[in-house]
Amino acid sequence: MTDLQECRRKIDEIDNQMVELFEKRMKVCEEVAEYKIHTGKKVLDPEREHAKLEEIRKKAHGEFNELGAQELFQQIMAISRKRQYQLLTEHGPKEEEDFQMVEELPRNNVTVVFQGVEGAYSYGAMRAYFEEDIKSYHVKLFRDAMEEVAAGRADYAVLPIENSTAGIVADIYDLLTEYNLFIVGEQVLKVEHVLLGLPEAELSDISCVYSHPQGLAQCKEYLEEHRSWKQTAVSNTAAAAKKVSEEKDRTHAAIASRDAGEFYNLKVLAENICKNDSNVTRFIILAKKPVYENNSSKISVCFEARHESGTLYNVLSHMIYNGLNMTKIESRPIPGKTWEYRFFVDFEGNLRDSAVKNALRGMEAETSYLKILGNY
Amino acid sequence: MTDLQECRRKIDEIDNQMVELFEKRMKVCEEVAEYKIHTGKKVLDPEREHAKLEEIRKKAHGEFNELGAQELFQQIMAISRKRQYQLLTEHGPKEEEDFQMVEELPRNNVTVVFQGVEGAYSYGAMRAYFEEDIKSYHVKLFRDAMEEVAAGRADYAVLPIENSTAGIVADIYDLLTEYNLFIVGEQVLKVEHVLLGLPEAELSDISCVYSHPQGLAQCKEYLEEHRSWKQTAVSNTAAAAKKVSEEKDRTHAAIASRDAGEFYNLKVLAENICKNDSNVTRFIILAKKPVYENNSSKISVCFEARHESGTLYNVLSHMIYNGLNMTKIESRPIPGKTWEYRFFVDFEGNLRDSAVKNALRGMEAETSYLKILGNY
Repeated sequence: MTDLQECRRKIDEIDNQMVELFEKRMKVCEEVAEYKIHTGKKVLDPEREHAKLEEIRKKAHGEFNELGAQELFQQIMAISRKRQYQLLTEHGPKEEEDFQMVEELPRNNVTVVFQGVEGAYSYGAMRAYFEEDIKSYHVKLFRDAMEEVAAGRADYAVLPIENSTAGIVADIYDLLTEYNLFIVGEQVLKVEHVLLGLPEAELSDISCVYSHPQGLAQCKEYLEEHRSWKQTAVSNTAAAAKKVSEEKDRTHAAIASRDAGEFYNLKVLAENICKNDSNVTRFIILAKKPVYENNSSKISVCFEARHESGTLYNVLSHMIYNGLNMTKIESRPIPGKTWEYRFFVDFEGNLRDSAVKNALRGMEAETSYLKILGNY
Repeated sequence: MTDLQECRRKIDEIDNQMVELFEKRMKVCEEVAEYKIHTGKKVLDPEREHAKLEEIRKKAHGEFNELGAQELFQQIMAISRKRQYQLLTEHGPKEEEDFQMVEELPRNNVTVVFQGVEGAYSYGAMRAYFEEDIKSYHVKLFRDAMEEVAAGRADYAVLPIENSTAGIVADIYDLLTEYNLFIVGEQVLKVEHVLLGLPEAELSDISCVYSHPQGLAQCKEYLEEHRSWKQTAVSNTAAAAKKVSEEKDRTHAAIASRDAGEFYNLKVLAENICKNDSNVTRFIILAKKPVYENNSSKISVCFEARHESGTLYNVLSHMIYNGLNMTKIESRPIPGKTWEYRFFVDFEGNLRDSAVKNALRGMEAETSYLKILGNY
């Protein structure tokens, strides 16, 4: 039987030689960078990289090693590119960017649109993100809010994108690809739903409950204890509260915020109706122009992978190889293409970072469509 | 100035040596695998890997190389682990002993439950998948259908999991982790929604429309042309048709199938109301016992990745390394853990394939939770 200690000694020896070779390679890469700085030649040369990988495959023996060596060299070339971008950024002019960096986004004296009515969670998120002295108004649909920003009637839109219990707001993801707007900020808001009824109503009177579909989803365990109640989805939680106050029917209730209840003069019939007591919603702030703040630390991208096997994995590899922490991945169907998906990925970083530039260039090369949704 | 050709010659030379060292390392890894097969020692040894990375960092010179060499060795160790898993599987394949292979699943003389009412799309999917001579009945909620199978009152449940336009049915994903049931089959059904009203109604009469939330989502472009209509979500499309027929109000309409319209004696007021004319829904067939057919070709798994950076990517790598085509990835929030996700992945294969066994073994070791949902 093999001795593990002996194996590890052999491995250590191999590894020492590999580190030496790696450092030697990085040294030559610096020379290549120098050449590219002088000639203006691009860092990423997909043809050269492709040929190199093919060469490596031929050098290796056996199916496993062929694949493994290729994977290893993808990583080595990514690290080499990263070094070259670093030197390029130190030496020469910055590469062209659509995104403009600003010190800080103006949060006062701006016009902000949100979906829903006063007292809605979106309203709360807006109040939390912006200063007091803004002009704000509300529209009926998510699409309307996007339309207002696209048409320049509002500077920003505040829209919910994800809830920690119910998951993503799928419509927003789809609209993000339809409108050419950019995420410039986010705001997380704690959601504490209560059951609201008319001042004269009791819990035993209720037979019908209104809320946003996510409000119903977030309280589904509570609602399953009241199966006889008719559930009706409305456009948002505050609209549900408004509806109850207007219909003046003591059998009607709404699942909404305590704030909405106060706003529409309703009574809290039940609290703690969400199973999950750490129920939070994340809102995004959208603008027409692609700007990002100096200290932005999260990047959202949307892409369509090519149709070959392993492609999604290859796209993701550019983040991993550049040491970027991927925090989220979502997929949505592509309209008109059955069982094909568009992916939405969040990762940590700032557009000025060379690791980010390097990853985005690599991803762009391996996708049929890539859009940077924002850096915030 | 440096000559690019000269640089590339130097790089090629370094790379040749690296490939050689890589192959040498893989050879020693095989010995380590042999040792681990005999001793039953685990492949993943986080302490040893951590110590190795620290050593590598000390060997490298300068901030960039320290980081780069560490990245490189993370990858090398991941490839080494994969090789060891492969050898482990070849020697003493860990059987997915829970899963039983059958020649063919019985599709006649069984009891099947579906959610919704007669005329629902789930009913259509059931009719398409099973033979004529089954006993079937329906329940109100997705959860109820799961409960029926878990309690042994039904052999199978038929539930919608994904629509090509509206995306996943999130509740089903969540229930799949709550109930210990298994996917034994799937059925794809073309969805052709129409707008249904009372026999005496005209399109111009309508002011209120009922459907399942996905029905409303799939026809959202059409509904945006009729903004004055009040939209109400009900539990399924056939229930919407039933409601219109019972309420006998000519201003009410339902978005449902033509079949549902015939079933409830309603009139088609508008057709082609889905923007996407290739609108299909995929249904899953659930059973209590983990069985799979001889010729099953798709595997669904659910897992929670560990919490370190790059882990999701590492989990996926086991499929890619074993040549398995990943066809789908979805994420859902984990209840009670804010911004943590559970992943659902589909890939091609059969549980008897050694590539599949190998991939599952590696994935199991690198996740905090992994469940094989089914092979169908």
